[in-house]
Amino acid sequence: MQNVIQYINENKNNHLNELISFLKFQSISTNPDYNAETRKCADWLASNMKSIGLENVKVIETDGQALVYADWLNAGADKPTLLIYGHYDVQPIDPIELWDSPPFEPVVKDGKIFGRGTADDKGQVFTHVKAVESFLKTEGKLPINIKFIIEGEEESGGEAIADFLPKNKELLACDCILISDTSWITPNMPSITYSLRGISAFEFIIEGPNRDLHSGSYGGAVDNPIHVIADIIAKLHDKYGKIAIPNYYDDIVELTNEERENFKKLPYNENEYKADLNIAETYGENGYTTYERQWARPTLEVNGIYGGYIDKGHKSIIPSKAGAKISLRLVPNQDWQKAAKMAMDYIKSITPPTVKITFTKAHGGNPALAPIDSKGVASAKYALNKAFNMEVALIREGGSIPIITDFQENLNAPAVLMGLGLDSDNIHSPNENFVLENFYGGIRASAYFIENFGS
Amino acid sequence: MQNVIQYINENKNNHLNELISFLKFQSISTNPDYNAETRKCADWLASNMKSIGLENVKVIETDGQALVYADWLNAGADKPTLLIYGHYDVQPIDPIELWDSPPFEPVVKDGKIFGRGTADDKGQVFTHVKAVESFLKTEGKLPINIKFIIEGEEESGGEAIADFLPKNKELLACDCILISDTSWITPNMPSITYSLRGISAFEFIIEGPNRDLHSGSYGGAVDNPIHVIADIIAKLHDKYGKIAIPNYYDDIVELTNEERENFKKLPYNENEYKADLNIAETYGENGYTTYERQWARPTLEVNGIYGGYIDKGHKSIIPSKAGAKISLRLVPNQDWQKAAKMAMDYIKSITPPTVKITFTKAHGGNPALAPIDSKGVASAKYALNKAFNMEVALIREGGSIPIITDFQENLNAPAVLMGLGLDSDNIHSPNENFVLENFYGGIRASAYFIENFGS
Repeated sequence: MQNVIQYINENKNNHLNELISFLKFQSISTNPDYNAETRKCADWLASNMKSIGLENVKVIETDGQALVYADWLNAGADKPTLLIYGHYDVQPIDPIELWDSPPFEPVVKDGKIFGRGTADDKGQVFTHVKAVESFLKTEGKLPINIKFIIEGEEESGGEAIADFLPKNKELLACDCILISDTSWITPNMPSITYSLRGISAFEFIIEGPNRDLHSGSYGGAVDNPIHVIADIIAKLHDKYGKIAIPNYYDDIVELTNEERENFKKLPYNENEYKADLNIAETYGENGYTTYERQWARPTLEVNGIYGGYIDKGHKSIIPSKAGAKISLRLVPNQDWQKAAKMAMDYIKSITPPTVKITFTKAHGGNPALAPIDSKGVASAKYALNKAFNMEVALIREGGSIPIITDFQENLNAPAVLMGLGLDSDNIHSPNENFVLENFYGGIRASAYFIENFGS
Repeated sequence: MQNVIQYINENKNNHLNELISFLKFQSISTNPDYNAETRKCADWLASNMKSIGLENVKVIETDGQALVYADWLNAGADKPTLLIYGHYDVQPIDPIELWDSPPFEPVVKDGKIFGRGTADDKGQVFTHVKAVESFLKTEGKLPINIKFIIEGEEESGGEAIADFLPKNKELLACDCILISDTSWITPNMPSITYSLRGISAFEFIIEGPNRDLHSGSYGGAVDNPIHVIADIIAKLHDKYGKIAIPNYYDDIVELTNEERENFKKLPYNENEYKADLNIAETYGENGYTTYERQWARPTLEVNGIYGGYIDKGHKSIIPSKAGAKISLRLVPNQDWQKAAKMAMDYIKSITPPTVKITFTKAHGGNPALAPIDSKGVASAKYALNKAFNMEVALIREGGSIPIITDFQENLNAPAVLMGLGLDSDNIHSPNENFVLENFYGGIRASAYFIENFGS
């Protein structure tokens, strides 16, 4: 490892200059005007990968932006295989007038590199390419088998890779998926996200009378769909903030004591949290902290509600119908279709006979979990600690990243999000930047990960 | 009375022809293009009133359409004074292509007169003018003092009379207000409406976090304004369909046994009612019939609700706010401002500390009641029965008519709605019509009312 780390340290300028070349491509995937530039970016990345000794390098055509694949599979069948995922496309640059320097002419200032895609995700994904280079240039080999799959439309829906994945399970088969596309919980706490919540979403509509009724003539004699939907929503949680759907918690993997202890060590300031949102009190399931509620407990949220007259002034009606949009956040081991069905069955069961109810088809994705005692998480923790010499946080994420679920389900392997970004990176905003020490440290971390994952 | 009734019977053609003249004026108050015609109509009515011997006939200028006033106050101070209210303006005529004959060229067909305003309200209000004529032409006097106030913008807001009323309490002082501008509950059951519900309306807004939050990142840890508003709405009624606001029923005048017996005799078919609305079950306060619920019980209806994302598809947010529009229907002796305050106080008391709540200013009007044992109601019942030789229904109305409340509050006298129309009259629609027998019978009924009210 000493040679590898030495190579990384000695090649900082080269790696930075290559990153700058990578960043100059205007690979804005969402805008077809940039399709040619986006494709050039993929080609450049592929050629960089080829130049460092990666094999089977391919720019794969899709219905959308191309995928870049590369591998090095000479470690032997007894060695684990790591799949590294990332994306080479970037967000649009508007509002351009708020940038201090042109977004595609990267500049280094105050220890950071500024430009579109520096942190999200070119700077992060490139650390892995340079780590592999550092092994191959010094040792001539890697201690594990490695595959890269780098997509070009993460910022515009990711349909190409979602389509590619189930058809190429063999090609992408692996023991772990490593991703660097997230941020640290604080600037001093490198963070590994090892679990994501899933989601299940549907809408339901309560229909009462066949037309809006005059609330003077009919009020009091006909049930009001808004009253019904309010009653239903009020019954979706119990008074302890728990979801009231029978048996809803049966499937879930509870947090371990170790995880709860980990979360307790994370920085959290209730007053700052409340001040940021301008709320007087937080609220959630009894017996859980805010991190636990956000990351590791199932939730049911009404995301939208509608019914009756909502313009200015008043219209005295009993509306014909009312509707609500629901999303369920799911934790490991819930199934999004089963959860939706349980919710719908329960809602149906508490709907009174005075109204009719209909549901839209649910859609969603399952939660993801790489257990904290799994090899991938352990290697990431080791790697970040060695590379940055800081205590490493093991965190979860309350949101859902569909591609992670897709990986987990198609490849039957856990995904480890070894983030290198900071909240101050301004991703998706003007003056996006990436701290240079995180770039160089990220290359070291990737190298340590590769080392440790093979041990 | 014999002479009066004989006069009415002998002058059917004259009265009909005069009504036709009255109907030909295109007194569409809502459209300024018809202002001149509307004014001509007022002038014609005033001159007809003058010609039959009414006194102090005045066409009163207002900021809107003119008011027509007339009186005959020679019965003496010991005799009661009746104020007759109606309107000479009419609804617009669209869609004109659906009329079988021109709306302002009245034609008689199948025992009905067709034309705009035949039933609403020229045909109905004119019966009272012709009844007074019948007394003055035969007896040379009336058994009571009578005042007419006929407005010209009932179909367009009624601001002129609402403004006139509080400034002319002396001029309009009376013991009872008689109005013919409503319909019978069936074609065989002349109906008197002796009570109207009042209304009080306001909106409230629940504010949670200062921005819409990602339901993945924050879901479970921050209270959701839609959940809060649903909980509040669910607590506005108890499980027996009663309004759950403490002491809310303290002020109300309960239905008398006689009234409940009256309502039981009215035609009501639950299956037809449900089929018309396409509902499986009616719903309302336990222990009350549909008529009682609609006419004589307080209600609280949410007329509109909003919050979060309601366009197509899904947006997984905890919305920053949610709101609801509420209307309270009030029964005698509730006060609309007090009722609104009670509702707001209760809603405030059940709002959790996780959110902020704001209310819009309430607006509304009080309920109206002419007790069924009052002289006006008794005279109207006697009159309709004598004139039509049918059983008379004493009904209430669940809606509100602001001018009735204004009369009641400014003149401190009950209003009796002695309707002459039928549901088949097509008021506000093409082919509006008025059954000729109801017109002639209406003149007799008005005469009998005048006779009885003076006895």
